Amino acid sequence: MAITLYELAAADPDRRFSPFCWRIRLALEHKGLAFEGRPWRFTEKDALAFSGSDKVPVLVEDGRAIAESSVIAAHLEAAHPDRPSLFGGGAGVALTRLHVAWTDQVLHPALVPLLLLDIHRHLAEADRRYFRESREARFGKPLEAVCPDPEAQLASFRRTLSPVRAVLRAQAFLGGERPLYADFAVMGAFLWARGVSALALLEADDPVEAWRRRMLDRLGEGSRALVAG
Amino acid sequence: MAITLYELAAADPDRRFSPFCWRIRLALEHKGLAFEGRPWRFTEKDALAFSGSDKVPVLVEDGRAIAESSVIAAHLEAAHPDRPSLFGGGAGVALTRLHVAWTDQVLHPALVPLLLLDIHRHLAEADRRYFRESREARFGKPLEAVCPDPEAQLASFRRTLSPVRAVLRAQAFLGGERPLYADFAVMGAFLWARGVSALALLEADDPVEAWRRRMLDRLGEGSRALVAG
Repeated sequence: MAITLYELAAADPDRRFSPFCWRIRLALEHKGLAFEGRPWRFTEKDALAFSGSDKVPVLVEDGRAIAESSVIAAHLEAAHPDRPSLFGGGAGVALTRLHVAWTDQVLHPALVPLLLLDIHRHLAEADRRYFRESREARFGKPLEAVCPDPEAQLASFRRTLSPVRAVLRAQAFLGGERPLYADFAVMGAFLWARGVSALALLEADDPVEAWRRRMLDRLGEGSRALVAG
Repeated sequence: MAITLYELAAADPDRRFSPFCWRIRLALEHKGLAFEGRPWRFTEKDALAFSGSDKVPVLVEDGRAIAESSVIAAHLEAAHPDRPSLFGGGAGVALTRLHVAWTDQVLHPALVPLLLLDIHRHLAEADRRYFRESREARFGKPLEAVCPDPEAQLASFRRTLSPVRAVLRAQAFLGGERPLYADFAVMGAFLWARGVSALALLEADDPVEAWRRRMLDRLGEGSRALVAG
């Protein structure tokens, strides 16, 4: 039952900053599955060639490679039904899709302008050019011009969280009394940010901040080492 | 097991336009519970006094009055566990909160500017002054000035739907293969709009439009009469 998770890393291999990789790391810890997290960099396409994917996360379990965070999560749920559930049943699988889609399509776009330059700064030398070129093509402007007003962007990011904030006023986790994959999807964004930036994304009295701290407190030992310092 | 649902109505009592009342109507139909929908108007506070609430929806079941759509939905689920579930289990209850919060805090605010004048036009005479005064106080401007650019507002409303659109590309309903309360929360917004406006909120090839039509097809007989024409 050997499990390996390929995770996006910066120049410092302990600086893991892909929100999608974090989802799977949190899911593996939730299920209590031992695994090795293997740092991988944007330009190391060859090291992933065996998997048929050119992006992480890639999970390898008993020699089988699985790519794409949602596919990996579904695999973990199906392969380890005796372990704590990621979704809380069939309706949970269906309902969690909104948490994931909202994170991908609303939360990440609100966050990425605040992090771009920090990510670039922390990357391995070989990755910097790839990162700059691919992101400048996506945004149609130099990295340095994507976020002309960080303060306004931060305020907008905080407003974006309003539906999650309302849920976390009513219950401890998005999944209820205990975190589920819905929590891991949203927390992935905060761990991504934490990996590269010292910016205080949330105000101290924000219910989302209290939840973020609860989630940090629950990290497994391996992850704790990665977010320390 | 007599059930009465007090629902917000326009001058025409068959024009029901509260998104929160629609949620409960759809929930009652989902559970296959017979009920009487009783039209109520903003200024008929006295008619609700017995319930302790001054707003609809109010549900009366076996002489017990329950207000607030989320409280009513929880009541229906607890009181009728033998009927089809609204949430699909405990995790479903917790996860559905995001669908509801997102509808309340993101979808409704994107929609309301497009509907304000239509709502006002359809109200009973006695309600119009109440509606204008309360909404103008909320928006800090005349009703006529809330939506200076309806085309831009419509485009923004459609963009707002992006996470729901992504979910409905992957599955037939927000609840999965069958609708759940998560669907009723979002559909309430579209039935609210349909009650007062002829505006085509969605493009014909939008997956959200295909879902909206599936939801319309599943309406019970009583609701079908209300949305006809």
